[in-house]
Amino acid sequence: MNELPGFSHPTEAQILARVTTDIRSRASAVRMMIFDVDGILTDGSLWYGEHGEAVKPFNALDGHGLRLLREQGIRVAWVSGRKSAITARRAAELGISPALQGIHDKITTVEDLARDAGLGLDAVGYMGDDIIDLPVLQRVGFAVSVPNAPFYVGQTAHWVTGLSGGRGAVRECCDLILAAQGRLGACFTASLSTLGGAIQ
Amino acid sequence: MNELPGFSHPTEAQILARVTTDIRSRASAVRMMIFDVDGILTDGSLWYGEHGEAVKPFNALDGHGLRLLREQGIRVAWVSGRKSAITARRAAELGISPALQGIHDKITTVEDLARDAGLGLDAVGYMGDDIIDLPVLQRVGFAVSVPNAPFYVGQTAHWVTGLSGGRGAVRECCDLILAAQGRLGACFTASLSTLGGAIQ
Amino acid sequence: MNELPGFSHPTEAQILARVTTDIRSRASAVRMMIFDVDGILTDGSLWYGEHGEAVKPFNALDGHGLRLLREQGIRVAWVSGRKSAITARRAAELGISPALQGIHDKITTVEDLARDAGLGLDAVGYMGDDIIDLPVLQRVGFAVSVPNAPFYVGQTAHWVTGLSGGRGAVRECCDLILAAQGRLGACFTASLSTLGGAIQ
Amino acid sequence: MNELPGFSHPTEAQILARVTTDIRSRASAVRMMIFDVDGILTDGSLWYGEHGEAVKPFNALDGHGLRLLREQGIRVAWVSGRKSAITARRAAELGISPALQGIHDKITTVEDLARDAGLGLDAVGYMGDDIIDLPVLQRVGFAVSVPNAPFYVGQTAHWVTGLSGGRGAVRECCDLILAAQGRLGACFTASLSTLGGAIQ
Repeated sequence: MNELPGFSHPTEAQILARVTTDIRSRASAVRMMIFDVDGILTDGSLWYGEHGEAVKPFNALDGHGLRLLREQGIRVAWVSGRKSAITARRAAELGISPALQGIHDKITTVEDLARDAGLGLDAVGYMGDDIIDLPVLQRVGFAVSVPNAPFYVGQTAHWVTGLSGGRGAVRECCDLILAAQGRLGACFTASLSTLGGAIQ
Repeated sequence: MNELPGFSHPTEAQILARVTTDIRSRASAVRMMIFDVDGILTDGSLWYGEHGEAVKPFNALDGHGLRLLREQGIRVAWVSGRKSAITARRAAELGISPALQGIHDKITTVEDLARDAGLGLDAVGYMGDDIIDLPVLQRVGFAVSVPNAPFYVGQTAHWVTGLSGGRGAVRECCDLILAAQGRLGACFTASLSTLGGAIQ
Repeated sequence: MNELPGFSHPTEAQILARVTTDIRSRASAVRMMIFDVDGILTDGSLWYGEHGEAVKPFNALDGHGLRLLREQGIRVAWVSGRKSAITARRAAELGISPALQGIHDKITTVEDLARDAGLGLDAVGYMGDDIIDLPVLQRVGFAVSVPNAPFYVGQTAHWVTGLSGGRGAVRECCDLILAAQGRLGACFTASLSTLGGAIQ
Repeated sequence: MNELPGFSHPTEAQILARVTTDIRSRASAVRMMIFDVDGILTDGSLWYGEHGEAVKPFNALDGHGLRLLREQGIRVAWVSGRKSAITARRAAELGISPALQGIHDKITTVEDLARDAGLGLDAVGYMGDDIIDLPVLQRVGFAVSVPNAPFYVGQTAHWVTGLSGGRGAVRECCDLILAAQGRLGACFTASLSTLGGAIQ
């Protein structure tokens, strides 16, 4: 484990000690991680004004986690059933590509993304919280859900995060993947040395 | 139980195991479900700007639950004591009709809705959280409230959801009704096959 | 206890059973109830945009509670240390008068309000959450605080609500005062019969 | 301990009884306290509209705590990795200077601030919640984090507040520093006598 100089906590071991060997194995195989948006990158709240959705609550820790994943060479995509200019804006700021919206046949989309990347579904992770996500959660190598999802969605996932959507669940997932791949210490160092990098 | 292929969890049984036989029976009789707005479809917060209410926090899981109810032939209506252009906007996006606002004599309105639909009050459910909702909760076949309501409103209801208003309480109620009617598995399948359906 | 017809729960007794005889006595003497705003009528969050405070989260249950107090002849005032056009807007919509802002010497203001109403401080209640509120909490007949206040503010109050500011604490306080005065059942009935009354 | 007249709670002793002797000693040495913004002065949520961040949720208790620190002669600065016009606005309203943004090499910035103030790092406190904050947390005399930070950040800090970022964590930190320096009672009195002072 490549720790930050002076950062002596056995962080990766602590993270991995919280999950089963099966989950650790699945997380270590992830080369592309795909995220649903509402309920995952947010708490599922939809803030309407008179003219439709006005604001959407993302999370600073999540944004940093997604950046760490990509810096370590893991592909990141968003696939949402809704269409929101706000989501597009946040994705653009974080440099997430692709950030697909209005997708109702999510499994076909996920299979296409995997094929284009030359990956099997066993190298793909997916994080979602509703019925529309079930076909994907049943097929990918690493299926993740959140405590704020209906329980029957959580039961379909390999792993349910401890934190809720929008409260750091995505960061928790990113940290687990990085720890399972022995890259968390390395990305601490890399993150701290890229002084000009954008914090989103 | 008509489960999604590959979706083997006994979801309906799990949902029904959480409630009494009386509640299951009441939920199974519902042909029209009517919802209060503030405190039920939201957490009861009112977000004011200088010119009045600026935004209102709805919930993505709730929106999907209401869609499932209607796809299974159960009528859905909103009846709110307040008047809000934001509520009208959200209702329009979800296709909720009628979405009545500024209603203070809620029991008369509910009785009118039932009569127009050719239903007795035993086939009507209502979900509300304040004093103004008490006369309706005392009369309908399935009276539901939320943990964030004053306790004396909850005591008047047949069932209090586990989740709070705006945090998935409406979805929990929709899921219970669908499970009690043996339609949850079916609507999983239907929902997943309507690929062009709007996700609101 | 004047209960709503068909509303048979011994609600007032249940509310009063939760507090001491001293608190019940103090609540029963209140003829004017004065509220701080941030942290009491809200959760203390200040939502800034580029040009200053943009929105403020009030609560629907609280608004109804304030209306019930006034319908039962108990005076209601707001006294805030901040100045906010949003607070002014919400106060106007609820018909709260006076709603004083930018007040740093709160005890002098409270004493003036009491004198103008012909009341002694033993007939005045106050609900606040910060250091600026301590001199008032030390003097009024019924001093109330909230769980989200610093603990040393709560220790100065006669009673700390169970619910937090902005999550129904004000309503809980209104309900206790009405119950201690034997008016809660009556105001249920009155509230339900004023069909044209505004719900704010 | 200089208590507010009539304010007889042994508040400082109660606050100090909650922490170790080491933390008390570190807090008593602080002459400059530096705060990260997102996750510390807020809960880490990022509220996007179509054109970027629209609002940011600060906290009234925190604002008052920062004012108390400065009234007692303790320097206050903000150092954020993000750039936000909203943060600049809130800092200006509170009179925080400097409020530095877009800072990725935080330890160099903190060292510069200390040198300019003629202080060693043992007289500097820092409160942060993410990886970017680790080098600072490892060096300053009083390193503070929050429950909403990743656990490995909390492990690096000397003290983790009981309250979360944006929910009063900053105020809790200010109160501890003031109590450790025997100034909390004094600043109660001072705060209450500055009747013209701005409440932000």
